[in-house]
Order: sequence, then structure tokens, then C-alpha cells
Amino acid sequence: MTNKSEISKAVIQRLPRYYRNLLELHAQGVERISSRLLAEHMGLTASQIRQDFNCFGGFGQQGYGYNVEKLIAELRTILGLAQAHTAILIGVGNLGRALLGNFDFAASGFDLLSVFDCAPTLIGKDFGGHIVQDVDGLCDFIQSHHPDAAILTLSRMHAPAMAKYVVEQGVRGLWNFTGEDLHMEGLGVPVVNVHLTDSLMTLCYMIGNEKVDSFL
Amino acid sequence: MTNKSEISKAVIQRLPRYYRNLLELHAQGVERISSRLLAEHMGLTASQIRQDFNCFGGFGQQGYGYNVEKLIAELRTILGLAQAHTAILIGVGNLGRALLGNFDFAASGFDLLSVFDCAPTLIGKDFGGHIVQDVDGLCDFIQSHHPDAAILTLSRMHAPAMAKYVVEQGVRGLWNFTGEDLHMEGLGVPVVNVHLTDSLMTLCYMIGNEKVDSFL
Repeated sequence: MTNKSEISKAVIQRLPRYYRNLLELHAQGVERISSRLLAEHMGLTASQIRQDFNCFGGFGQQGYGYNVEKLIAELRTILGLAQAHTAILIGVGNLGRALLGNFDFAASGFDLLSVFDCAPTLIGKDFGGHIVQDVDGLCDFIQSHHPDAAILTLSRMHAPAMAKYVVEQGVRGLWNFTGEDLHMEGLGVPVVNVHLTDSLMTLCYMIGNEKVDSFL
Repeated sequence: MTNKSEISKAVIQRLPRYYRNLLELHAQGVERISSRLLAEHMGLTASQIRQDFNCFGGFGQQGYGYNVEKLIAELRTILGLAQAHTAILIGVGNLGRALLGNFDFAASGFDLLSVFDCAPTLIGKDFGGHIVQDVDGLCDFIQSHHPDAAILTLSRMHAPAMAKYVVEQGVRGLWNFTGEDLHMEGLGVPVVNVHLTDSLMTLCYMIGNEKVDSFL
């Protein structure tokens, strides 16, 4: 197996997409699939898929295709989805509520332990089965529950200070919706910065340039 | 200038990020920047930046750096941000409301014309300055206003039928939050599928593989 640290970001970003598509195929009763058919299903090329899977040592038998169930299990392990990571969410505005109401954290490998806000009108209220806690208790909570990740849905202006604070308390990863690019690499803490503006600008470009394919 | 149809998706996806970072530098009073300093600011390499910009014919003078204001203007043109594209939003649940309440559509190149839902409890209500319209009037609205894009924040199960419908009515691009991968390439309609589960799974992987850098 290749050293994982050498695997490119592009490959890593495709792993969840493979996992998601394979789950769908499995739900449709597909037990085995060739790289050609999987490629067709996903809008990739077969050689791209073989190349990606080779980063993790293969998974398939030449000419025999992939066992869908085994591949799902392999991807679950590689992605760390079975490790029961834990998370907290900070900031219960519209976006925080949208995630609490609709997003399946467990399906992405995280048990959401608690949610925090500073607004007295929100503290104690229930969103998606989570009672909003006072952010004043955040330090105690992190020290007693050791959440792996923090989901930052607070306002942009408070993002850098909050990120620094939770990382100092021991949080090991950030899923950042604040619009502020956060960099915690120096501290060994990965950050996934979600920029919805970038995503919509990409569509803007694509509408004006008709030959560009869709993005997954 | 290179034929735009040959520009890779990776480059296109970096364009909004260049634009966003340059806007920030401009706001900080930076007038000129070398590819080395811009690279440092963005966590890229200088040669990557020069390579990306070369896809669009350069922008810089050897050894003299980039004029920030001119570069912003070039990127605005390339991204199509100045073309006043129009959009509608379909589905005013939590996620739709989060976008209506917080998201700056204009900054990503779109004028949001109207929002639609089918729930009688929502029709007529105001979210972020937009009065929810009955989805029954969608066909008439598209035919009279010709929105360029539709933002799909309705439920996943209704996504494929709605996508097909609005594209048949003339919508030219989809920003899709439904979780369903939509493919309209055959009809020449670009789709940006936003998969937040993929994004969180990526963080899950990164927490378990410490050598991986952050993603922007």
C-alpha cells in the first residue's frame, strides 16, 4: 500500500464520491461492478478509477470487477467512517439550523455531541434533537468530552478567534462554513473550508462557457 | 489565449479562490503582488499560480508582479461576474432559508429574482427580502423572466423531476443542494452538485491521516 501521506488531494476528495455512489449501487442490488461501468455511473474514466484505487492497493481482481460490498467496507475503513469520531457545532444561526435539521452527521462519520451559541434567545432551545448550550460552557465541555471536530457555523468575524480557541482546547479538525479561510496546518489540525460563493461562481463561469462539463 | 474548453476543472475551481483572495488583498490596500507572495497567501506554489494564469494568457509582467485591481477585473470578466446572470431558488426549507438569510448571491454573479415553494404555510412569507411564490406559478415565471440558473434546495426525491422541468423551460444552469447527483450535460446545461456529506467525510479522512494538509 502506498504511504497515505503521498496520496493527492484530488484522490482523497473523490473517495467520498466513490463511497456514496457505491452505496447507491448496493441499494439497487448491484453486487459486482467493472471499473468501466462504475466509471460510466460516475462520469469518470475507467483508468481514472483503477489509478485512484491503486493508491490504496487495488481492491479488484483483473477482469472480474469489484465486489461492491467489500469495496464499501474498504472505503469505510480508509475514510475512517467506522471510528465513531465526535463533533460539536458552534453557531446556531440559519446555516447551523439547516445542518441540525437536515444533515446526517453519522453518515459522514461523526456523532454530533452538542451545539453551542451565545444568544440567550437560543440557549435551551431544541434544534434537530440538540438542545443549544451556552458557549460559556464550551471549554468545560471540550475538556470533558474531547470532541474530535468542531463545525463552525458562527459569524465570520468571530471565526479566527473561535478556531484558535477550540484547537487550543484539543479539537483535532474543523469543518468551517464561516467564509473565513482558516489555516491550522501549523498546529497539525486539518480544516475543510466550505466556500459556497466559490461554488456558485463556478456555475457562473460554466453558464458562460458552454463546453465545460458539470462538476460533481 | 488558450481555448477555454481545454482548461481543466481544477483550474476553473481555483478561479473563484483567486478572485476571493485578491479581493481581500485589495481591501487591505495591496496594489501589486508577486506570484510568490500570492502563493504564500493562498497556500499554493508560485509556479502553480503562473501556470493557472497562463491558461488565460498571463496577466503579469515578468519580475514585476500582478496589478491586484487589474487582476480582479480580469477574473471578474473570466468568471462572468459582471454579466448580471439571474437565478431563482426552489425550496424554502432550512437550507433555502439559510441561503436567503445569509448568502450574497450578487457577489457570486447572480441576481436572485424569486423564490418558490409548494407549502401553503410558506407561500407569501418573506425570507431575506424575498416573498415566497407558489411553485404553481413557476412555469409562467420562467417563461416571462428567463432566469439563467435555478438553485435547488428542495427535497432529494423531487430533485430529478424538478431539474428536468426547469431545464425544459429554459433554465441554463443548476446549483444543486438536494444530495441527488444531477446530470444535464446531454442537454448542455451545467450543474454544480454540492455534497456536504462528501466534504465532512473528507475531514473524517484527514483527522485520521495527520500528514494531509488542509483543503481550501
